[in-house]
Amino acid sequence: MRIFRAVAVFSLGVFVLGCATARHADRGSEALLEVDRAWAAAASEGKDLERIVSFWSDDATVVPAGAPVVQGKPAIRAFVQQSLSTPGFHISWRSDRASLSADGTMGFTTGTNAMTVPGPDGKVMTIAGRGVAVWRRIPGGEWRCVIDIWNSGP
Amino acid sequence: MRIFRAVAVFSLGVFVLGCATARHADRGSEALLEVDRAWAAAASEGKDLERIVSFWSDDATVVPAGAPVVQGKPAIRAFVQQSLSTPGFHISWRSDRASLSADGTMGFTTGTNAMTVPGPDGKVMTIAGRGVAVWRRIPGGEWRCVIDIWNSGP
Repeated sequence: MRIFRAVAVFSLGVFVLGCATARHADRGSEALLEVDRAWAAAASEGKDLERIVSFWSDDATVVPAGAPVVQGKPAIRAFVQQSLSTPGFHISWRSDRASLSADGTMGFTTGTNAMTVPGPDGKVMTIAGRGVAVWRRIPGGEWRCVIDIWNSGP
Repeated sequence: MRIFRAVAVFSLGVFVLGCATARHADRGSEALLEVDRAWAAAASEGKDLERIVSFWSDDATVVPAGAPVVQGKPAIRAFVQQSLSTPGFHISWRSDRASLSADGTMGFTTGTNAMTVPGPDGKVMTIAGRGVAVWRRIPGGEWRCVIDIWNSGP
């Protein structure tokens, strides 16, 4: 009986954990979109370098369209700093979807973006793009972007 | 005592589950890279459309550099079929990294690719790229790519 009871309690525990995980994932995808919106707002404002950079993990990889891969927080900070100090630079994006692993420890967001940069003729041009970000929860529960890639359409 | 024992058994269960999950994730990232290698081999061979297409989930999204977003298996099949029937077309890729959620239900791979396509002057040209794929385990445990995006460097 004791074994039966222990198994029953264990099974109940797994069931409760399972339900909690499913609810967690539902709430989690909306929470992740909120984090992404806060990031997009900071990036679009283009003023607070440390806040913008804080959304990436320390070991994040950025794969920018038309530029070398940027690996790790110090390189990402320099990349963002250079972008923000480029005359006419502006970035905006909007994620339309977030999806999580069953346990809510990993997720991805997809969306569209627009980047204004100096063109080959020196005049600023705005390039429309599509982006995918992969996210991980760090200890404490906050989300950090670990992979960040975008490209342009036709 | 019974409560204590039940809690102890439950805690042991969670601990064992936790260890199993961690081992699972370690084995899982190598298994995911193997799946990706099999996919790359089929795509590089460029002969078996259905096998190539089978690695994507039914609801997958492909975000090709320089082309419109391709959404869902039928559209992806048409996209791949068109690519394979393009004279001179060839694709190859190699993923260098796979990383999974703690529960092994989601993962991503990153790597480099090369695509040979007819250029603007009609001669074939090979474009080097960097790609990110997001994967999900489907019921039964197999991996399917749910998001697929790539771009080119400088």
